[in-house]
This record gives sequence, C-alpha cells and structure tokens, in this order.
Amino acid sequence: MTKIILLLQSEDRKGLLSATVNYFYKEGFNILHCQQHTDSYEGRYYMRIELDAEDLKTSRSEFESKFKEFAEPYGFSWSCHYSDYKPRVAILVSKTSHCLFDLISRQIEGELNCEIPLIISNHPDLEKVANQFRIPYYFYPVADDKLAQEGKIRDLLKRFDIDLVVLARYMQILSPEFTAEWSGKIINIHHAFLPAFQGANPYLRAYQRGVKMIGATAHYATEDLDKGPIIEQDVVRVNHELTPKGLKEVGKDVERRVLAKAVQAHLENRIIIHANRTIVFGVER
Amino acid sequence: MTKIILLLQSEDRKGLLSATVNYFYKEGFNILHCQQHTDSYEGRYYMRIELDAEDLKTSRSEFESKFKEFAEPYGFSWSCHYSDYKPRVAILVSKTSHCLFDLISRQIEGELNCEIPLIISNHPDLEKVANQFRIPYYFYPVADDKLAQEGKIRDLLKRFDIDLVVLARYMQILSPEFTAEWSGKIINIHHAFLPAFQGANPYLRAYQRGVKMIGATAHYATEDLDKGPIIEQDVVRVNHELTPKGLKEVGKDVERRVLAKAVQAHLENRIIIHANRTIVFGVER
Amino acid sequence: MTKIILLLQSEDRKGLLSATVNYFYKEGFNILHCQQHTDSYEGRYYMRIELDAEDLKTSRSEFESKFKEFAEPYGFSWSCHYSDYKPRVAILVSKTSHCLFDLISRQIEGELNCEIPLIISNHPDLEKVANQFRIPYYFYPVADDKLAQEGKIRDLLKRFDIDLVVLARYMQILSPEFTAEWSGKIINIHHAFLPAFQGANPYLRAYQRGVKMIGATAHYATEDLDKGPIIEQDVVRVNHELTPKGLKEVGKDVERRVLAKAVQAHLENRIIIHANRTIVFGVER
Amino acid sequence: MTKIILLLQSEDRKGLLSATVNYFYKEGFNILHCQQHTDSYEGRYYMRIELDAEDLKTSRSEFESKFKEFAEPYGFSWSCHYSDYKPRVAILVSKTSHCLFDLISRQIEGELNCEIPLIISNHPDLEKVANQFRIPYYFYPVADDKLAQEGKIRDLLKRFDIDLVVLARYMQILSPEFTAEWSGKIINIHHAFLPAFQGANPYLRAYQRGVKMIGATAHYATEDLDKGPIIEQDVVRVNHELTPKGLKEVGKDVERRVLAKAVQAHLENRIIIHANRTIVFGVER
Repeated sequence: MTKIILLLQSEDRKGLLSATVNYFYKEGFNILHCQQHTDSYEGRYYMRIELDAEDLKTSRSEFESKFKEFAEPYGFSWSCHYSDYKPRVAILVSKTSHCLFDLISRQIEGELNCEIPLIISNHPDLEKVANQFRIPYYFYPVADDKLAQEGKIRDLLKRFDIDLVVLARYMQILSPEFTAEWSGKIINIHHAFLPAFQGANPYLRAYQRGVKMIGATAHYATEDLDKGPIIEQDVVRVNHELTPKGLKEVGKDVERRVLAKAVQAHLENRIIIHANRTIVFGVER
Repeated sequence: MTKIILLLQSEDRKGLLSATVNYFYKEGFNILHCQQHTDSYEGRYYMRIELDAEDLKTSRSEFESKFKEFAEPYGFSWSCHYSDYKPRVAILVSKTSHCLFDLISRQIEGELNCEIPLIISNHPDLEKVANQFRIPYYFYPVADDKLAQEGKIRDLLKRFDIDLVVLARYMQILSPEFTAEWSGKIINIHHAFLPAFQGANPYLRAYQRGVKMIGATAHYATEDLDKGPIIEQDVVRVNHELTPKGLKEVGKDVERRVLAKAVQAHLENRIIIHANRTIVFGVER
Repeated sequence: MTKIILLLQSEDRKGLLSATVNYFYKEGFNILHCQQHTDSYEGRYYMRIELDAEDLKTSRSEFESKFKEFAEPYGFSWSCHYSDYKPRVAILVSKTSHCLFDLISRQIEGELNCEIPLIISNHPDLEKVANQFRIPYYFYPVADDKLAQEGKIRDLLKRFDIDLVVLARYMQILSPEFTAEWSGKIINIHHAFLPAFQGANPYLRAYQRGVKMIGATAHYATEDLDKGPIIEQDVVRVNHELTPKGLKEVGKDVERRVLAKAVQAHLENRIIIHANRTIVFGVER
Repeated sequence: MTKIILLLQSEDRKGLLSATVNYFYKEGFNILHCQQHTDSYEGRYYMRIELDAEDLKTSRSEFESKFKEFAEPYGFSWSCHYSDYKPRVAILVSKTSHCLFDLISRQIEGELNCEIPLIISNHPDLEKVANQFRIPYYFYPVADDKLAQEGKIRDLLKRFDIDLVVLARYMQILSPEFTAEWSGKIINIHHAFLPAFQGANPYLRAYQRGVKMIGATAHYATEDLDKGPIIEQDVVRVNHELTPKGLKEVGKDVERRVLAKAVQAHLENRIIIHANRTIVFGVER
C-alpha cells in the first residue's frame, strides 16, 4: 500500500488535532495512523500522519498546495513524503569499512528503503568494497585544498540527485556552507555517547576516564562538530579488560547498529527536527 | 490538571479516529493526547485518549452515559478513568520482601499514584515490614483449606474497596474463581522470562539450561498459571559464575523493576488487554 | 605475540591452581593470563591459561605430550590451541542473508580470526552473495534423500579441512550422526530466547504470547534440536506495534550480533563445554 | 566459610602470578579463587585472591606482617580483608529518599553485607525514613559555615567507626581535606552518564541536548567534583516524550541500581583503584 506521510510542527495551541483530522476527513482521506507529541516544556506540537494514497483524487502537487492553504493559518511547518519513492543515499567513508558493509547489506536485505548510487571517499582504501557491490566509488583526496575537495563532493551529490548523505566514519569536518545547504540531510555517526567525548579519539579518552560503558551517537551534521540534533544512541557495557584498542573494536558493533537505526528512521520519514532536538516517532510494522 | 482518560478497543474499520475526535470536538473537549494502534495482523483497533477534565460541563456519570451512546454503534469496548482518583492497591506476599519494599518506597516517593491500605500474606514473616510503614498486615495461613483462606482474602479485598491486587512474590496459585472475578485486576511477577521457565524453581532450571540472561515477567493473573497477558519484561546478563542461588539474588533486581513498571502502567491507565496480549501505551511526562 | 592457550576442566579438588601454575613455572613459561572458575554447585573446576609461545623450547607436539603426563593424574580434560593458527570455518545457509553478510564482513574487518573457505546451502539463492566475496558456494538441494545430501556436506567439510561449522540460519535439522561427529564444532543461531520458543516460527509464537522482548540464542548443535549448550544470548525490547513480520525484521539485528559474538568466542578459544552448559571466559583486548 | 581476600597491584613484570601462588601454597593455603588483570596499555598488574581462612595457622596480624615481607620486593600495593567483618556504612542524604530506601532495604535483604549505624543530612526531611528503620539520624544544616558543618560530620564518622561513606544524593560539595582523608572510602552517585553532564542539573541539560539515553554514575569522591574513579554506570533509553521533570523521574531508577551495585562491589572487596580508574572484579556466587 502506498502511503502519504506528513510531518508537522507548530507552537502548541488548542484544537490542532481536531482541525487536522477534520481536514483530511473532509478531503476524503482515511487516516491510517496519527501520532502526536506535545512538548509541554517548550510549548510545541508535533504530528506524523499516514494517509492511504489510494484516497488521493488529485495530483500530488495539487494535494500539497491545498494542504499548504490549510496549514498556513495554524503556523504549521510541514513536509510531505510518499512511501513509493526510494530516496537516494550517498555514503561518505574514509578508511574503516564496518559501517559501510553494514549499510549496504541492510539495503540489500530490504531493511533500508533506499538506493545507494555512489560512495565517496577521501581515501582509496574502500574502493574494493564498492566494487564488490558494483557501486560507483569516487575518490577525492583532501590534499591542500579542503574546500575544493568538498566542492567536488557537493557537485557530485547534485549530479546524482542525492536526498541523504550518510557519513559512515568519514573523518573530515564539513564546512558551514555544506552543512547549511544540506541541513537535516546529513547523518553522522560519532563514536561516543555524546555529549561525552566530543571530538577526536573518544575511545582513548573513554579508557583514560575509566568509563564502564561506551556508546555511539548518530546525529544530523551541523556547523558545530558533534553538536547537531541527536537521532539515536546506544551503549555497550565494558570493563577494565579493554585497552583503548579493545574499546575501539567493541565500539564498532554499536556504531553499526546506531547508524543503521538512524538512517532507517530518516528514510521512513519518522523524524522531526526542532532547534537542536529530534522527535523520532515509532512505526507499526 | 485533572485528566479524563479513555481506553477504547474494537474491530478495525475506517474512520474510527475521525469519528472519535469529532465527537469530543463537538462536545467541547480539548483532546490533550490521542494514541492509536492498529493491529493489522489481528484486524483490531486500540485508542487511548486524554481529555482536560476542566472541559467537562456535566457530571462524570452523565459524561459516561453519553459517550456510551456514541461508542455502541462502533462496537467499542471502553473504560473511563479520572486522574484525580487514587486507586487502592492490596499487596500479597509470602516470605520475600524485596518487591514489597520496592513498591512501598515507590509509592511514598510518588512514583506510584495509589494508596496501599493493606498487605496480606500466608506467612507471618513480613509483618515487621508492614509495621515499619504502618500498613495493616493480614496473616492468613493456608493450612488445610486453601479455598477458605482465599475466601478470607477475597472478603478483605471487598471490605477495603481494593481496585488492584499485586502479587509481590505471593507463592500461591489462585483459584479460577478468584482470577475470573478479578480479571485484569491482579498483577503477578514471575521470576523468569516467560514463556521460558514457567512454574516452580525457574532459577535452578535457568542454571541447568545454562542460559546467559535471566529475566522477570509481570503479567495479569489468569486461570492458567504463568499464561496471562504479559505487561512488562526485562532481563539481566549472567554468566557461568552464578550458581542457582546466585542467579536468584541477581534476579531480585529485575523482579523489583519489572513489577514496579507494570503496576505503574496499570495505575496510569495505559494498558488495554485483548485476548492474551496487552497494548501498553507510553506517556508524556 | 603468538600465544599458547590451554582449556582445562576436571572435578574440583584442592591445589589444582598451584599445581598447574607450578608446572608451567618449572617448564620455564611465563603465564600471561590465567582464569579459573569453580562451579560450587556441580563441584567442577575450569581453567583457561595463556602462555607466551616464545617460551616454548620444544616442538608443539612434545609440549602437548609432556603436558598430557602432568594432566592425567589430576583427571584434567584439556585442549591446546595456538593463536597463530587461523581456524577454517564453513558457513551453512538457506535463503536469508543477514547473518551471512555479517559474518563475512566481520571476517574481512579482522573481528573474526578465521578463514571462510566455503559456503554451503540447500538453496541457490545466496550464490550471488558468495560470488561477491569470491567464496566458493556449494548448492546441495535436500530433495528426497536428506541423509545423502548431508553426506555430501560432511564429505565437503573433510575435504576442505574445516574446523568449525556455522549454521547461519540453515533451516535443516542435522542427523544425530552429524552432530555427534562434529560435537562442539557446530554453532547454530536460534531466532528466539531459548528455552522459550524452541522449534519453528518463534516470531509468530512470540507475537501470540505477547512478549515484550524478543531474543536470539547461539548454541552448539546437538542431537536434540535447540537443546545444545548455549554460548550467547541477547534480547531487544519490542512492543505492541510489531506484527509477527515486524518482530522478524527487528529480530534479525539480534541474530546477527549474537551469532557473531558466539563464533568469536569459539575462535578465540574462550569456551569450555561441560554437559549442557558452557563456560565462556572473557579476554583482555 | 570465612574468606581472606587480598587485593594487589604493582607494575607488570614476569612471574608475579607464579610467585604469589607459590607463596600461598608454601604457607599452606588453598587458593579458592585468583583473578588477575594485566593492563598492557599502562603496564600494570592487578590481582584479587580468595583464601580459606580455615587454613590460617597464625593470627591475622601475623599473617599480614608476613605477607608484607613477601610483597615488598615485588612492589605490591595491597590490602587484606576478611569476609566475617561487617563494614560500617554511613549514608549521607539531602532531601530525596529513593536511594536511601533502596540501600536500606537491600541491607535488610542481605544483599549488602554491612551495618548502617547512622544517616546524616543537611536537611530534616528524611528523619521520618530513618525513624521507620530505627537508624539514628543526624541533621546538620549547612548554614553559613560549611566547613564547620563538615567538621561535625567528620567527627561523627570517626565516633561511629565508619568504614565507608555513601553519598546517596547528598547535594553538597565536599572539601578537599574531607575527600583526601577518606580517599577511596566515599562513594557518590551522580545523576548522569559521566563524563557527560558533570555538575548541576544534568537532567535539564540532557533534555536540552536531546539525548536518547540517560544514565547514572557511581564513583569514588575526589577533590574534583564528578571526576573521581568510576565504579559503575548504567543507562536507560528515553525519548522525546519526557520533559526534564520526566527524565528526572525515570532517572531515579537507574540511580538506585547503579549506586547499590557500586556499594556492593566495594563491600565485597572487589575494587582496586589506580590513578583515576577502577578494576572491578566479578565474583562467583
């Protein structure tokens, strides 16, 4: 069944649910699922609505223009998605392959509803992995001119009609222009339980601090490194038996899992971003 | 803020959300929160609705009679609850005190919105705990006549206007009459990850089977021992270092936590039972 | 550093540690690590010892014969392993690829210290995966004669000098002859938290029972299906939003993780089996 | 069975295990359990040894003096403990009772092998809890002179022969003199997953940062607030439905659990501190 998925947010006020439900009822839609969240601390309202696309009597663009008229007086920010569209994902990597392998195999398995038309890297190391899966691999070394290298990447993303960029252990900081242009469309995996151990070498610092759990954090990339809206986190219990190298090995498993879950939530249109926080709705499967 | 909480279920059909939201809209209610679940496998629909009691223009009984008229043609089974009512909970115990201590302290802390007017036991051991908290303690030994003992308990539950019975490691099987009369109102904690290790001595059997995790399960009591609808489960990792006695000690912590969470979900009117399964909605806190 | 790893077990009695440590001391070995476990419930003693292979003055076979003489009067059962040997692993699959992908990518990543010289299946579906990684794929349909098909597999395992067989969602029951011959050398992944949901369709039954967590169990294969010694288990929290199909999807992640951890523990010579239980020692990394 | 427990640490060098095991063998001791850890990153060696006190032929002080002679040339730092001694624990609290209730009930249950001869607070609020359990309660308000108040507490700790101080949500910073005098003998619970959210109001900051898990950390108190050696950590998954107040409520459960586990590990003489890290050995139960 093709679904129309709407993500909405606005300041909280009375009657938003009734108004929205009524709107779709009058337009002849069956609401398959409707989730709301009222953040009483910030006074903000969030909704995710699933409609049956079979009920659509007009073109998709007409549907959206009409909804825009409804949404405006309520001050809704919103986006509209269709489950029959397969988003196009570019994966950026450096030298480590565990997240790359994991994302590709999940895509093949059907866990991630997307296409992966290309892999981009600042190192040549993972070309063999790309070849195994017959995915084009673009190797752009950073060299002296970091911005030029980034420019090539940004061109490529446009040329390939990319919808989502996944930094699967891409060890480069992006420029503010890049993150601004792709706001809410770049997912990064940080190999620590943010906000602990921001920045470089988190496993060494975790060892030095003697923590008893290590974690990973998937977040949208923003100008400030490791400060973007968090999508997913998880941890694994560790003990004194692990050196920094051991922590790093054990951490790979959490990184894989956390990044995959975040990408899946994004592809399923379950995430709303507000300021520096995310609302991640669950789904019925 | 006092809330009216409605729990509804019916066969799934189109338009149930619109109809219900519209009903309350026309009755002048602001819907604070509305959660739905469609079980596509069983074709069943579930809702939990929170209303602001300030919007109530009639008596509570009038409100309910009127809603009954609305709900009937849709085939809704439903119940209505008010957040300003403190349910009355009876705790049944045998000899082990860890769950009892935990429930009482959480009630004192305000985590469990209820009163605990009495503790009932088939052993005298925990009277001292009851005394510490100045809660009346009724000691009814099982002796020869199990049904007579149970009869006394059931009388007591009526006399004390009890809403919920919590079996906090009460090591007696209840009669079918008791569980039928109190259907959906008795919560038991089983010291294993059901359906594994039903029945007696689960920790010994967990040891013998060599499991690497042990768990606990809170469920509504039904005629069939350990087969009632599961409310909450959790596990803890164990290893070869634990004997059956060690597993039992470690398990106490999971038992406490799982029972407390289940009782809390029940007291917050977040659980709908259908056949042998529960829908447990989350809450915004 | 090459390590000699000894796994020992015997009935518990006084002085086993001193005797063993003294033996290696007199033989001129530095003991890198020594772990023991006394199962006071069963009266059994287990040890894992790591020696520095540089201290070895004789051939490996002489070393082992001499140790045999020491071990005999103490009634030790033991095995001896060398960290510079890469065990040869055969992966058996049916149609599902998630565990296969995961094992191969971890082997490539260096997380699993082994070679994977072949993949065997009763279905042709996963040949393309094998090809991607240039691993020979043997497709032996079950057809009418199950034992004949199994015979071919067993021949192949010998021909390829296989040390460990991993059933990565191989949906066939093995004959008692097979499991007896390969006792302690076949690891299976069961898609449930054993002993709950033994046998077929565990996710459907998990749905029907309304459990709040689902799990996976890696164990050595024995004659009795799903009753062999458990190596590793893990669970993931689920809720009412998941149909049987949804549970199955979510479960894949736990299956992957649990199987990989069990295979890793086996390859690192960290497991001792006694009767139906395993001792799984940790390692310093 | 009474046990002698030795905790040892030194720079790593060859032969430490053999030497120690031999020493006790020659002294006529059966080694019940012997755990070691070699930190290859820091080049440090740690041991925990359990002996059967029945094998003791001399007085305890003679035993210790003799062991001292053995340990000195190896550069061992060590401590010696006897399982028949019940450590005396002082609990310091402010206004929140959840950790206090939990510790007391676990002590009554026998999970914590200690005595709790007194509770000290800077607020009068929890005297009623102390009274319920008939534990003396000392109320010392901070008023103007923080050091004077601390002085009274330190006098009390000496007068009551206290072995371990537990800060069970005691919301005061201790002076460097206090933490120095009681080094390795004060356990604090911090309501966040350190090193994230050090300092005040961690739940509010966790909300603002939009984390998807919250945690708690038990650590030894040192001069630098929230920087002492970590003993135990745990987390709980949260989502957008929780306000700062909701996070705080949910966090109480983790705080309880983490503090109890840390105190238990300390009381069972399973912790060795080196610099800012702890080695926490497991035990066979």
